[in-house]
Amino acid sequence: MRFEHEGLAQRVLFGSGEAARAVTEEVERLGSRRVMVVAGASERGLAESVTAGVPVVVHHDEVVMHVPVEVAERARAVAAAHDVDAIVCVGGGSTTGLAKAVALTTGLPIVAVPTTYAGSEATNVWGLTEGAKKTTGVDGRVLPRAIVYDASLMLGLPVAMSVASGLNALAHCVDSMWAPRADPIDRALAGEGIRALRIGLPQVVADPRGLEGREYALYGAYLAAVAFASAGSGLHHKICHVLGGRYDLPHAQTHAVVLPHVLAFNVPSAPEAERRIAAAFDAASAVEGLRRLRTELGAPTALRDYGLQEADLPGAVEAILPVVPADNPTPVDPDNLARLLHAAWEGADPR
Amino acid sequence: MRFEHEGLAQRVLFGSGEAARAVTEEVERLGSRRVMVVAGASERGLAESVTAGVPVVVHHDEVVMHVPVEVAERARAVAAAHDVDAIVCVGGGSTTGLAKAVALTTGLPIVAVPTTYAGSEATNVWGLTEGAKKTTGVDGRVLPRAIVYDASLMLGLPVAMSVASGLNALAHCVDSMWAPRADPIDRALAGEGIRALRIGLPQVVADPRGLEGREYALYGAYLAAVAFASAGSGLHHKICHVLGGRYDLPHAQTHAVVLPHVLAFNVPSAPEAERRIAAAFDAASAVEGLRRLRTELGAPTALRDYGLQEADLPGAVEAILPVVPADNPTPVDPDNLARLLHAAWEGADPR
Repeated sequence: MRFEHEGLAQRVLFGSGEAARAVTEEVERLGSRRVMVVAGASERGLAESVTAGVPVVVHHDEVVMHVPVEVAERARAVAAAHDVDAIVCVGGGSTTGLAKAVALTTGLPIVAVPTTYAGSEATNVWGLTEGAKKTTGVDGRVLPRAIVYDASLMLGLPVAMSVASGLNALAHCVDSMWAPRADPIDRALAGEGIRALRIGLPQVVADPRGLEGREYALYGAYLAAVAFASAGSGLHHKICHVLGGRYDLPHAQTHAVVLPHVLAFNVPSAPEAERRIAAAFDAASAVEGLRRLRTELGAPTALRDYGLQEADLPGAVEAILPVVPADNPTPVDPDNLARLLHAAWEGADPR
Repeated sequence: MRFEHEGLAQRVLFGSGEAARAVTEEVERLGSRRVMVVAGASERGLAESVTAGVPVVVHHDEVVMHVPVEVAERARAVAAAHDVDAIVCVGGGSTTGLAKAVALTTGLPIVAVPTTYAGSEATNVWGLTEGAKKTTGVDGRVLPRAIVYDASLMLGLPVAMSVASGLNALAHCVDSMWAPRADPIDRALAGEGIRALRIGLPQVVADPRGLEGREYALYGAYLAAVAFASAGSGLHHKICHVLGGRYDLPHAQTHAVVLPHVLAFNVPSAPEAERRIAAAFDAASAVEGLRRLRTELGAPTALRDYGLQEADLPGAVEAILPVVPADNPTPVDPDNLARLLHAAWEGADPR
């Protein structure tokens, strides 16, 4: 047993219907008097209700996917012009990302109120894009001081998007079992995340307005982000990143289709991961547990349904091979990777 | 689901035989040039070898159990006289506690190298005694910036002491399932801790010089401390605290005897804890898992073997009742508490 693990200083407040109270308390705890609220225009009403008890000096709603540098610069200028001393962000990954971009250069503390399962609020990772180029980095200043999780804010998230986003979180948990920096603490948290998502997501599908399923899913998504940020990208995310980038495949569906194939590929060489994942699914094996959940959720099964051509597969294998993590449990070679991708392409049973 | 969880900023470096390298790197990371080494006289050789790569300006070896205030004051004076900019402490709970007492008033960063399973290194809790009165508190300044866990330093810890200390850590994990501030994250980490201790402690008994058992036990003790510091004291620790204080019973043995009785008392009312603990023991039930481990370890079974008189029991019940946590899973009354204590006193089967 040999590892390095870095614990992060962050308060996590979890309670349905308590966002406004919790945000007020966390802003008071920071001693802030001049708050900037970051939230997209469509979240304005929600953001106002959640920050009703907070000394807000400015609302900023220019939220753009992948945080373009010029969008970040404008948000920083707004923060400076209003002499703000804290940021409350209300929204998904792009909103949290913009707040982080401001914190990166100003050191302003963030209280994050997530409305999706994206998980950015639980990490010290920032991202900015300039033209088509995305830059990411790690900096303690961008880690929100507090996260306020209120599952009642998720009740309006459409079921299809909830499932796609939840399966993405599940992929973070699974890949955290064998990613390059994975340690036993990451694996324990990832196992707890799988358990929570396995309980929560079917409930979200069966009863989209029910709180319990939303709570479990949100809690699972938080753990997925914590584990993944610590463990790094494993084989699954390397494959999906290449497929998404080269063939413009939809993000969530690509993850949902590829995950069972990577799981089946790796678990024979990763007995500890097999044990943890099977236990988290409460199933006889990891593969069986994921199969059952995917059936319950009606998850997509074949990449060819999303525009990938069979003729694309050799090029995909070539592009993926150089980015495969060196210590992936099952050694990857052109043949077994080609078989994995072909199975994911045609929707074959993972094995 | 409703909780507050506070993540702490701390680096954890785990690797057998790597303490000297890891300490050197962590002190460099802090940018420290003038290090005070805190270690008891009997640990001097070990402390010197672990800090061989570090700019040490002073060794301080006045380590006393429970950190008397005057001992803390002298250590602070030594730190000031030598203008130190960091502390490396090498030892058990009293040594870490002294380093924390210095950090509490000076803000000096600590790199902790534990040589027992006490767990103080993983918490932001400090303790000082003045005469017979112990004061404790929580302060972010006392949390070591880094912990260097090197299981090879534990090889000399006698088996009996390892088992006693390991069962104490196990009690921290179990009580973290239902303590007043217990949240799902604490429970997940406590479950992982039980699993690690269940694997490690029997190996320590079977092969005291083997590294693997020592590593699992040390990892489990770390998780126990993290979970317990976050969750607070539950019924088990309240009972043991009263028994230890009033009747001068030995700490470790008291914990070892009482734990199965509190477990059997609470799990019928705590199905989630039952599930987590049973899974962590890989047993059909929590009670059965603990019974099996205790048998393997030859754990003590009766308080009467340690000097407690049957006539003491009514007084113990009276002293414990007022400190029972209000939200203990199974409601505690004078009758069921008397039965629990009597069973622990005579060494009856827990039920």
